[in-house]
Amino acid sequence: MDHSFIKHLAKPADTKIVLMIIDGLGGVERKKNGPTELEAARTPNLDTLAAEGICGLHTPAGPGITPGSGPAHLAVFGYDPVQHQVGRGVLSGLGIDFDIQPGDIACRGNFCTVDEQGRVTDRRAGRIPTEMNEELCELLRTIEIPGTELFVKTVKQYRFLLVIRGLESSHKVADTDPQEVGKKPLEPEPLCAEAEKTANTASEFILKASDVLADSSPANMVLLRGFSSLPDWDSFTDVFGVKAAAIAGYPMYRGVSKLIGMEVLETGDKPEEEIGVLESNWNDFDFFYVHIKLTDSAGEDGDFDRKVSVIEEVDTLIPRITALNPDVIAVTGDHSTPAVLKYHSWHPVPVIIHSDHCRRDNAKEFSERACMAGGLGPRFPAVDIMPIILANAMRLNKFGA
Amino acid sequence: MDHSFIKHLAKPADTKIVLMIIDGLGGVERKKNGPTELEAARTPNLDTLAAEGICGLHTPAGPGITPGSGPAHLAVFGYDPVQHQVGRGVLSGLGIDFDIQPGDIACRGNFCTVDEQGRVTDRRAGRIPTEMNEELCELLRTIEIPGTELFVKTVKQYRFLLVIRGLESSHKVADTDPQEVGKKPLEPEPLCAEAEKTANTASEFILKASDVLADSSPANMVLLRGFSSLPDWDSFTDVFGVKAAAIAGYPMYRGVSKLIGMEVLETGDKPEEEIGVLESNWNDFDFFYVHIKLTDSAGEDGDFDRKVSVIEEVDTLIPRITALNPDVIAVTGDHSTPAVLKYHSWHPVPVIIHSDHCRRDNAKEFSERACMAGGLGPRFPAVDIMPIILANAMRLNKFGA
Repeated sequence: MDHSFIKHLAKPADTKIVLMIIDGLGGVERKKNGPTELEAARTPNLDTLAAEGICGLHTPAGPGITPGSGPAHLAVFGYDPVQHQVGRGVLSGLGIDFDIQPGDIACRGNFCTVDEQGRVTDRRAGRIPTEMNEELCELLRTIEIPGTELFVKTVKQYRFLLVIRGLESSHKVADTDPQEVGKKPLEPEPLCAEAEKTANTASEFILKASDVLADSSPANMVLLRGFSSLPDWDSFTDVFGVKAAAIAGYPMYRGVSKLIGMEVLETGDKPEEEIGVLESNWNDFDFFYVHIKLTDSAGEDGDFDRKVSVIEEVDTLIPRITALNPDVIAVTGDHSTPAVLKYHSWHPVPVIIHSDHCRRDNAKEFSERACMAGGLGPRFPAVDIMPIILANAMRLNKFGA
Repeated sequence: MDHSFIKHLAKPADTKIVLMIIDGLGGVERKKNGPTELEAARTPNLDTLAAEGICGLHTPAGPGITPGSGPAHLAVFGYDPVQHQVGRGVLSGLGIDFDIQPGDIACRGNFCTVDEQGRVTDRRAGRIPTEMNEELCELLRTIEIPGTELFVKTVKQYRFLLVIRGLESSHKVADTDPQEVGKKPLEPEPLCAEAEKTANTASEFILKASDVLADSSPANMVLLRGFSSLPDWDSFTDVFGVKAAAIAGYPMYRGVSKLIGMEVLETGDKPEEEIGVLESNWNDFDFFYVHIKLTDSAGEDGDFDRKVSVIEEVDTLIPRITALNPDVIAVTGDHSTPAVLKYHSWHPVPVIIHSDHCRRDNAKEFSERACMAGGLGPRFPAVDIMPIILANAMRLNKFGA
């Protein structure tokens, strides 16, 4: 649904909403005709929410599409992920909790190896360990370029983040990664006239980097990709009219929340810590996004049983949420991460929307199969979730007379 | 889903896909509370595929829309049929297996009757028999226009195909059919400056046609409609990244496949011959489209029982497909052709998508009613089918990080 339409209808109300995103929640069966992770888990509290609420399965980014965590979260937050794409540099910053400011230009750096002629021989510098990356970043931090402030941060292995602050220039600069070995790194070409300063600064950074890294073989050069700035999107509050807080222990999810203007609360990364933060901030916000990470990690490790136990642990925390008496509780995942695939997948994701006002359906428990028969449908767009939540929270005006 | 989006995500894989389109598959009940054709048919093999796969009902071209075979096939192939419309001339060529080349201008001709003042008295020349059409086409083939090659082919009754080759001119020329009797045929007006040569050539052809047909009353004149050229669409391979073969015994379906760049294999029109062609070409392609025609013909004839037996015959061939061990088998129709309506209809069409990776649903047999409760949903856009097939064949990259 178009943001300009929904923001026109959103109205204030004295109601509170909790949206819990259980990362990688959806699964598939391990054995023929066996249960999925969610079906195998004992979840009496979630089952009650499902029985009292309305259920379904959402597709985050379209039929058959396996989304990354960023686009999948945006979709559940009501931002069409195909229309709201974030540059790789900004995404890298979000993933390590770097506080990117408006006007900053972020890009992802790779340490690489070049030969004496300057031709790339390894685009990932032999996948150096993260510890070495940290030492190399220290070297890069000695680089100074007048008129700008530079930030260099270790991401992992051969990857780092470069942020250029204070330039007042466009981020539209081409990648320098030649994409194959045997070629020299490309020049950082400006893709529009307004990006010339950025390109020059990047060029100067690369030149100085090759100097300071000269003796650091195999990591004796850098490649820069995904030049980007904070996107210019309507904030979550502007679109949906709620004062929103994000409770997420992992950087990536705090980052995505910050991107749409949610207030990010301090929390540990254990589910019970997150619920504690929810409780202690209950009076200060209308909308709480609570993120559970470990289901996804278990799925990616291919550990069906561990994913089941994380889901069971989350279930035991549900009474602490219901005790707060929210007007709407929504529980879903951002995408599926079936343990048998050890990876994100395209499978639709279970959803409960629970309120006093929803029309109950035939889903009597929280499972993929029960949700298929639910009132929200077996394969509905994730961006539908927010308007339905708002309606249940009595936060949308009538459309038309 | 936008082709530019999906083509960006498509990746090669060592997986094979069979898409069987049973023409006009969907039906409705003959008697109140009785079974549909598919429900009446004994289909143990399709039922097993349905029980193991994920099912649903697709709408080829939108709610309530009854599509022709061309648009319905395009939809299942992932081409939005409203955005991908083919001119009538090109469609006529496809329907008679004429090999339209890039740059050719095709249009549909009608033999008609004109009076002494040149006014149309019968737009269909008394629906002359096809044999007479063939004789008249011989006369039209004597027409020569310098700088062009002309092809005149009988379609059926009063309808023929005219193809103009070698002009290097746009096809955008208006129909000459005045749409009512008592009026003279219209001039073939160019609709843009680049179509002038086409309009002049058409005008010259019409003049010469009225000469050679002067003594052939009632078919003493021609009307030309639907000037068109091959559309400039992305090929199936470009969009979905598969090497695709079409196995279809009837010209129209070979034509539609060729239009999107599938390789069209030689085959007879019996289902078992088509499966033989599938088997003998198994190693050479990633994707096989197999078309079954006779369900639709039986439906159009209003022969419920014959449609049932064609479905049962197709069912007996399924084990020969599963024996090839495809990674994905999809079975659906292009549209519904209920025998009680004796015509194509708007009713959603049953679909099975079967793979090791699909999440099973509650559909335990292949029938309209079982598919309504399936995980794909009871009324989903046909263009969703291809991305879901590709996902199940592990042929789509993750979207975003």
